[in-house]
Parts: sequence; structure tokens; C-alpha cells
Amino acid sequence: MATKFMSLRNLRFLLYEVFDAPSLTRHAYYSQYNRKMLDMVLQAASELAERLLWPCFQEMDRTPPELTEDTVKVHPVVKTMLKEFGNGGWIATTVPETLDGQQLPHLVSDACQFIFCAANYSATAYPGLIDGAARLIETFGSKALYEAYVPKMRSGQWQGTMALTEPEAGSSLSDITTTAEPTDDGYYKIRGQKIFISAGDHDAVENIVHLMLAKIAGAPAGVKGISLFVVPKKRLSEQSDLVPNDVVTSGIFHKLGYRGCPITQLSIGDRDDCRGYLVGKAHRGLMYMFQMMNEARIGVGMGATAVATAAYYAALEYAKTRKQGRKVSEKNPAQPPVPIIEHADVKRMLLFQRAIVEGALSLLLQCSQYADLHKVGSDEEKEQCALLLDLLTPVAKTYPSEMGVLAISQGLQCFGGSGYCDDYPLEQYYRDARIHPIHEGTTGIHGMDLLGRKVLMKNGKASQLFLAEVRAVIQEAGKFPSLEPYAWELSDALDKLVQVTAHLVGISQHKGPEHFLADATLYLELFGIISIAWQWLVQAITVQKAIEKNPPAGEQNFYQGKLYVFRYFFGYELPKIEGLLKRLMNTDGLTVEMEEAFFQD
Amino acid sequence: MATKFMSLRNLRFLLYEVFDAPSLTRHAYYSQYNRKMLDMVLQAASELAERLLWPCFQEMDRTPPELTEDTVKVHPVVKTMLKEFGNGGWIATTVPETLDGQQLPHLVSDACQFIFCAANYSATAYPGLIDGAARLIETFGSKALYEAYVPKMRSGQWQGTMALTEPEAGSSLSDITTTAEPTDDGYYKIRGQKIFISAGDHDAVENIVHLMLAKIAGAPAGVKGISLFVVPKKRLSEQSDLVPNDVVTSGIFHKLGYRGCPITQLSIGDRDDCRGYLVGKAHRGLMYMFQMMNEARIGVGMGATAVATAAYYAALEYAKTRKQGRKVSEKNPAQPPVPIIEHADVKRMLLFQRAIVEGALSLLLQCSQYADLHKVGSDEEKEQCALLLDLLTPVAKTYPSEMGVLAISQGLQCFGGSGYCDDYPLEQYYRDARIHPIHEGTTGIHGMDLLGRKVLMKNGKASQLFLAEVRAVIQEAGKFPSLEPYAWELSDALDKLVQVTAHLVGISQHKGPEHFLADATLYLELFGIISIAWQWLVQAITVQKAIEKNPPAGEQNFYQGKLYVFRYFFGYELPKIEGLLKRLMNTDGLTVEMEEAFFQD
Repeated sequence: MATKFMSLRNLRFLLYEVFDAPSLTRHAYYSQYNRKMLDMVLQAASELAERLLWPCFQEMDRTPPELTEDTVKVHPVVKTMLKEFGNGGWIATTVPETLDGQQLPHLVSDACQFIFCAANYSATAYPGLIDGAARLIETFGSKALYEAYVPKMRSGQWQGTMALTEPEAGSSLSDITTTAEPTDDGYYKIRGQKIFISAGDHDAVENIVHLMLAKIAGAPAGVKGISLFVVPKKRLSEQSDLVPNDVVTSGIFHKLGYRGCPITQLSIGDRDDCRGYLVGKAHRGLMYMFQMMNEARIGVGMGATAVATAAYYAALEYAKTRKQGRKVSEKNPAQPPVPIIEHADVKRMLLFQRAIVEGALSLLLQCSQYADLHKVGSDEEKEQCALLLDLLTPVAKTYPSEMGVLAISQGLQCFGGSGYCDDYPLEQYYRDARIHPIHEGTTGIHGMDLLGRKVLMKNGKASQLFLAEVRAVIQEAGKFPSLEPYAWELSDALDKLVQVTAHLVGISQHKGPEHFLADATLYLELFGIISIAWQWLVQAITVQKAIEKNPPAGEQNFYQGKLYVFRYFFGYELPKIEGLLKRLMNTDGLTVEMEEAFFQD
Repeated sequence: MATKFMSLRNLRFLLYEVFDAPSLTRHAYYSQYNRKMLDMVLQAASELAERLLWPCFQEMDRTPPELTEDTVKVHPVVKTMLKEFGNGGWIATTVPETLDGQQLPHLVSDACQFIFCAANYSATAYPGLIDGAARLIETFGSKALYEAYVPKMRSGQWQGTMALTEPEAGSSLSDITTTAEPTDDGYYKIRGQKIFISAGDHDAVENIVHLMLAKIAGAPAGVKGISLFVVPKKRLSEQSDLVPNDVVTSGIFHKLGYRGCPITQLSIGDRDDCRGYLVGKAHRGLMYMFQMMNEARIGVGMGATAVATAAYYAALEYAKTRKQGRKVSEKNPAQPPVPIIEHADVKRMLLFQRAIVEGALSLLLQCSQYADLHKVGSDEEKEQCALLLDLLTPVAKTYPSEMGVLAISQGLQCFGGSGYCDDYPLEQYYRDARIHPIHEGTTGIHGMDLLGRKVLMKNGKASQLFLAEVRAVIQEAGKFPSLEPYAWELSDALDKLVQVTAHLVGISQHKGPEHFLADATLYLELFGIISIAWQWLVQAITVQKAIEKNPPAGEQNFYQGKLYVFRYFFGYELPKIEGLLKRLMNTDGLTVEMEEAFFQD
């Protein structure tokens, strides 16, 4: 088993040197913190991850959840963890103090999330889902709902879920058929089927609280007729006992990875006795849910980055210790073999992984900073950050998800045949990570979200803000002679992105939405590469400034390493836009015109 | 479970329309066959795969091999299969009739191999390994060795293996430490450890025959001191009984996939009683083994293509039946959902898979044709085909392996969340296929083989032959107006390949081998894309000719589909060379100069 799953040094670099998290404490809302306190939080998260989550990472995979008569049996650590997370305030890190939360900056809270996910992705899903579900009730629910559910959830006693997907409604939520029938007693009767519900039932908690989408009879068709309900597994009786609420787990799915967390199929209201409680107003459910989903999407990006980070450190450790072969310039077979990290191709694979995971983490913390400024900044900052977050959500979800899978695959490759065997953790990371391009909206869905919605929304205002952000960095980088060539490259790439966007908008007007969106997934890939290049340039500027202060030798190595990874991204990854641009300009409608009959043979 | 795992129609297209397999029967060596007979072989392989291999594809994964006291227990179908394969001549398809073989053209034999692998990759490994091991004895061993071992192997009673890898010698075979001590009785005493030995022990056969590399005491250091031995699990006593030969299975590996076939760790000669029998001459072992390895490498490419083909057909079937969402141009949510194959992005994912698997299969059968002409052609053809095969082996192994993994990942993506669950076969294909970029030489090893050895061998003669082959196709394609633009594109790509090769050779001369080979993996990727583009152009020419003959409607669909996939490859995959070329021309030595200390943080 590898001994390191993430780098606190790199987190501190990003939090303090790049994004200046302590500057947030100048805002009244975060003024109870200072850098030292933020660092203590980081340290505490790291210790918790190392002590509690990391040791059972493999075991939770090897002993997956089991469906029993009335619950799902999960690894015993889940109960311990939820208790510790609840008591330690880890399920309420960004909740205001007025609601008994920690009121931490998103930058630091998200960094802690990264640490937990790197240690054990499956385990971290449980508190993550509680947090999202509780926030929905806090934001949109009544005081009575809040009091009945949220304290139990935030203390880790009750699980929360997002209950959206149905057998016939996955990517297309407008087709859900779960129904909610009003009663005279204030609640609704819920009936339906849900599938793929993460942590949808288990024995580590007393109760499960589903935040569930359903349609009230007579609601409009499509997404405008969807309402949001709290549907607990057990409801409170008049005597305040927990009694069954006719939510039955009819199955659990056997998954490729991510096995520490059960994914359930639920039968709701089969005995006509399931009560649901409306959250907010009727027919607004999907809008509410999108608040949780947008956070969850960035959370998926963070999880993907974290898993790939842990894989990278495992590969790095192996590459340093595994001896095999000689340098290609060494022809004498009597010379002893060298650690494989000395082979250029192995270094290339390690640099690739680092370029992906440290670039993605930077983009995600950039988003965290926008989330913080959206909360505490000026009115103008608030509006701008909301737009930037909206625009970057599909990118921050997808780039780490897609590239994380490839990074882990290269990590596995560093191990050779051993990477294919379960003596090392790579095969598990490889399985775990494959969920990320699927859950919380597939890559295809996010491509259409970015190109079909986000890029053009409010007359392209979000896009303009994004371009201005990147151009400001390009301008600053141009002041450093060693960075100037890279600044030019990114500037050129950005110009091409603008051109291709304009070209596609033209296609939209002349050929309609099918042709416009046919290659939206590739557009998202292009946008992702440029976004990560931007973040590497941001990091390179910080590194240049640090090097000018002549840091001690160990720190020099850290900064030199950063520069190599930065150069790797610009040398090996950024050129990939050339092929994408060539394709995206070639809007011949190939995939639109391809007929089903032509797939026949 | 999907109902189709490969397309006989496509195989016939390649075998008869593209590569004209029946023309081989004009050569005396293949003159006992005609097209009808070749087709019967194909049909028989297909029926055997469907009846015997396909039904246990999932079950062999779910019930993996178990180590028992003196053997490894495998799925009972393995015994049935080896018996049927042995009796049916399927383990001797390309063996001459004089040695009781079928004397089939490689084109058809390899097509059968493709069918078997698509049905059940793990199962097909057993007879495949027997074939390779038996051929080594046939080619290089004594008559006595042949008589003692080969008939039992080719009849499926005894398993054969390739026993190369050791704990400290994987990619670097020169470091093997297994020893062979001569005795006065004609045999050698073998001592050592071997790992990752596929089918290295199991209970479906009476005996296991390892073709094992070892070093005779006093042998030269490195690869020039390696000899090849037959080391059976059980040897024949003087009474002709099978008695233990001190080869003990000390462990089996738990793998990500490819679980139907056991991968073993062997302890050899622990009781000083293991006898090995020298094959051919001392110290020539690695050269002999490379004959088997080159075939095995192309076999890996075929296996990778086959697994990805089966995944494609599963994804296609799902995409046709799964309904979700509406066309992006349809705004009315009351309209019924459509099969997802109607969405352009799903068609893109299917086209991607088909472009990879049908392109790779074409390249592999091109290699089969070279193997046939190497056997039966004129002296000039023999020499040319040997060189082309040598050059293309790393490409034919690696492109399908690397791209097969990505194709399957896109197949899995077509299923959404269901692809991540074991209700569908995609998650298994995803696991199974990840072995291909590793076994029989990792992708990194093949990159160095191509650029560092093959491209330049014999003053670049193989490269010149390859360029001539591709240019001939470009010229022919140029005669069809609809293909001309594609011919130009490939011509341009080929020119760039020549340029980048010349640039790298210059680097080799000025900066040495480390810099020269630093991006050999990317060079291999570039070479692979261009090779597949060549094969798609070959197919497109055949299609154009067929369409001119105005075939019936069903056939029109097949040919139209081919043209779309051809256009897909040129529109979406070939442009990827742009980024690779940009990187390969930028020989800044980044990965050579990156220091281990810079990975520290």
C-alpha cells in the first residue's frame, strides 16, 4: 500500500501562494479566521483522513455493501466516520455560524474535501451527500422541515440523498414518473421508483432522508412540473418515534468501483403509505435541485482530481523504488538496473499525471474562490463570480473526470503488470474513477450545457468575463521574460477559442441546433484544455515570484518541479487543441447525418 | 447480455473484398483450399465461439481461478474447450499438413482468432498459448522434443506457456536469474522464480509445458546469455508415467480483469529436482522466443481489437433500444423519448468505436496477409513482407491496445450509469482490455522498438517499403473523385511523418539516444494513427468499387456505413496528429532533464 495520497505542500501552495485564502478573512463574514487557523483546519482534515479514511480504503472495496432484509449493511467504519464527522463539524464546514456551522471559506472547505476524497472516495460520499441534502432544506425548506431534519443530518445521525434518477429518466429528468398526491394533512403521498441512489440506504445511520423529485398530479409536462420533497425512510410518528415510511430498498447495484458506497434502487409507496413533505414551492423542484447539483458537479470534479492524485502518489512511490532496465545510453548489461523513474518515458507518464491533477485542482480552487467572493464580495463581484461559476461548472466537472481516468491509467501503466493486480491500489483507482464521467451529468450532457447554454447566456457575458480573467493572467505573465512565450501561446489559443465559438454560433443560426451541438463534447474538451493552461500560467507566475525570493533548497525543488510540470502542460497537452480546432471548424454534420441503418451490418 | 459480439459481414468484407484471401489459394501451399472452404472455416469458428465460448464469458469472470494444493482450479469449460479445439484442429490452424496441421492461410486463421477472442478473451488465451509454445518446439527443438510434447499440446491435452518474466525481470529480460545447470544425462537442472505466467497451471489439462528462459552457468551477461528450455510441470519417467518435475505454483495473481485465465507465480527447482530440456542451441533463447513473441504481440493487438469489437456491438444494441430524451431540436416535452442512437453525441461515440475497431482489424489482417506472402510469395515478397511485419508489429500491437481501452470506455459511456454496473458486460470489457497495453511489451517498450530499432533498421528499408505501400494506396484513391481529398490528407500526413522522423534522427545524432527516444511513445501514437488512416483509405477504395456495382439495399447500408466511419476517422482521428507533430518537433528534452528531486514535495 502506498504511503502518501496527496500533498499538503501543494495544497498550501495553491491556497496561500496562488489564491491567497487568508485575504478572505478581511471580509467580515470570514473574520473569525486567520491563516494559522485555516492551516489548523487543513492539518486536522489531513490527520482525520490519514487516521480514519485511508486505512480502510481497500477494505471497503473488498467488502462491498450487502442488501439485507430491511437495510444495507455497510463497512463499520461508516458509522464511526459519520459520528466523528458530525461531531467535528465536518458536515457543516460552510454552513453559517448562525446555523451551527463552521462558516469556513469554500477555498479551505473544498481543500478538506479534496483531502478526504484522496484518502477514500467512497467513504467521503456519505457526508458529502448529507451536506448537499441538508443545504437544500436549509435554503428552500420551511423552518419546521429544517428543525425536524437538518440537525440530525449535520450531526451524522441521518443520511441525506439526492433521489432524482428513475429507470426511464436518467439524463432526461423531465420524464420522471414518481407522483406526489396532496392530502389534507399537509403531506403528500409519494409513489414511484428511483434507481442509482447513492447511500440510498444503510445501517450506519438511524434514518435516510431522501431529497426526492416527483410530480404533483396536474403539474405541467417536462421540467416545469417537477417538485422537490423530503421523503424519509422513517418518519416521525405523533409519539415522535421513527416509524417506517414505505420506502423500500428493492436492490443494490454491483458496480465496477466506488464500491464502498451502496447505490440503491428504491420502491416508494408500494403500500400506499409513503409521506413526502414539499420543499419550497410546487413545480420549482428542479431549480432547487440544481443548486445542489451544481455544487455536486464541482464536487465530482474534486473527487476525480483527488482519486487521480492518490494514484499519482502511488505511481511516484513505485517509480522511485522499482528497479528495471538501464538508461538507453547504457549498453553494458553488467551495470545494475536503475529505478524506473530514471527512464524518460516513465517521467513523461508521471509528469502527465501531475499536469492533470495539479492543473485540475487549481481550476477547482479557482472555482472555490469564486464561490467565496460570490458570498462576501462586492455586488459586482457577486454577479461576476456567479456567472463565472455557472460557465466553469461543466468544465470543472468534466475535465478532471475525463482526464483523471487517463491519468490513473498512466499511473497503472507505471506499475506494468503489477498495476493490473490488486497487490497495488492502482487497479482500484482505475475502477473507482470511471464513475466520474457519468454521475452528476454525463460528459455529453455537460458539453451541451457549456456550448448550448453557458457560453451564450446573458449575451455571452460569462464568456466575456472568462476571457477577461484569462487575458489578465496572460498580461501579467508577459512581464516575466521566461513566461512570455507561454503567455503568447495561451493568447493564441484563446483567440482560436473565440474564433471557433463564433464559427459554431454561425452554424447554429444557419443549420440549427443539431449541427451546432453535434461536437459539443469536443468543444468542452477544448475549453477544458485552455482552462487548465490558464491555471498553469497562474501557478507559473506564483512560482516565478517565489523563486525571485531565493527560497531554501527543498523549496527550490518544489518550485522547479512546478515549472517542469507547467512546461509539460504547455508542451504536451496544450498542442492537443490543434486537432480539436481542426475538427470543430469542420462542421460537416457527419454525426447528424449518420443514419441508424448504416450501423447495421 | 448482448446478442452479438462481432460481424461476419465485416470479416468477409475484409477477407474477400479488401484482402482477397482466396487469391492465396493460387499458391501451391494453400491450393487445397478455395473460397467456399475458407468461408466454411470462418462459419465453423463463429458457431464454435457462439456455442462454447460466448455463453461462459461472464461466468468465467465471476468464478475466477482458485489455487488448490497442487493445481489451479479453472472453469470446467476450459477442459471441454481444449478438447474440442484440439480435436477440431483449432490449435494447429497454420501448422503444415506434414505436421498434422490445417495449413490455413494466416488471414483466415487470424480471423478465426478474432472471432474467438471477441466471444471470450480469457478462454482463447489457453489454446493461443499452446499454439505459440508448440511452434517454438516445432521450429527450434529436436525431433525427440517434438515427439514428446507437441502432439499432446496440439491435441489440447497439455497446456503450453511462455515463461519469461521474473520478479526482478519484466521489461528487462536481460536480468533474468533463473539458472540451468548442465548434467551428464542430457537435461539441465533448472532453478528460479517466474511470475505473471498466463495459464501457468490449471486442472483442465494433464500437464503444463513451460517454454522457459534461463541462463546456463557461465553464459555471457545480458540477453546474449539467455537459453530456452522446455520445462514441464510433470516429466515422463522411465516407465513413461508422468511424475512431478519440481515446478510448484506458489501463487496466483488477483487481476483487474482477464480473470478467466490464471496468471501464476512459479517456484522452480526448490527441491533440486527440476529438469529442463534445451531447445535449439545454448544462448540463442531470446532470439527463438522473439519468434513467439512477435506473433504473440500481433495476437495481443487482435485480442484488443476483438474485445473492443464485442463492446461496440453491446453498446450499439443498447443505443438502439434505450430511450432517453428528445432531439435537441424538439422542445415539446410531451413528445415521446427517442432511442439514444438518434442523439448526435451517441452516434459520435459509436462511430469512434467502429472507426477504431474496424480500422485496427484491417491493419491486423494486412499483417496477416504479409505473413502469408512471407510464407508463399516470391523471394522478394518474402523479404519485403518480413520487413513490413517487423516494422508494423509494435504498431499492430499498440494501437489496438491503447485505443481499444478508449473505445470500450466510450462504449461504457453509451450505457450511462448502467455501463458502470455488472448487469451489462461493458464493465468487464473495460477491465479485461486494460491488460493489453501491458502484456507482451508495454506501450513504452514498443515505442522504443519502433523508433529506436524498426524505423532505422537496414538503412530504413522497412520504412521505405511502408511509405511505398501507403503511397500506392494514396495514388489509387486519387482516381476516385470522392476519395481524392482524403488521399491528399493522408499524403500530407505521410510527408509530415517523414519530416518528423528526419528531425528525430537528427536529434539522435546531435543529442544522443536519451533525447532521441524521449517521446518514442508519442511517435508510435502518430505512426499508429497514420497506419489506421491508410487502412481506412484501403477500405474506402473497396467500398467505392462495390458501390459502383450498385449492390442491393441492405448492402448499400453496409457500404454507406463504412463510408461514414471512414470519414469519421479522417475527420476526428487523423487531426490528432497535429498536436503530436507539434510536440514531436519540440525536442526540448523536458522529460530527460526533469530530475527525480523535482518530483519531491
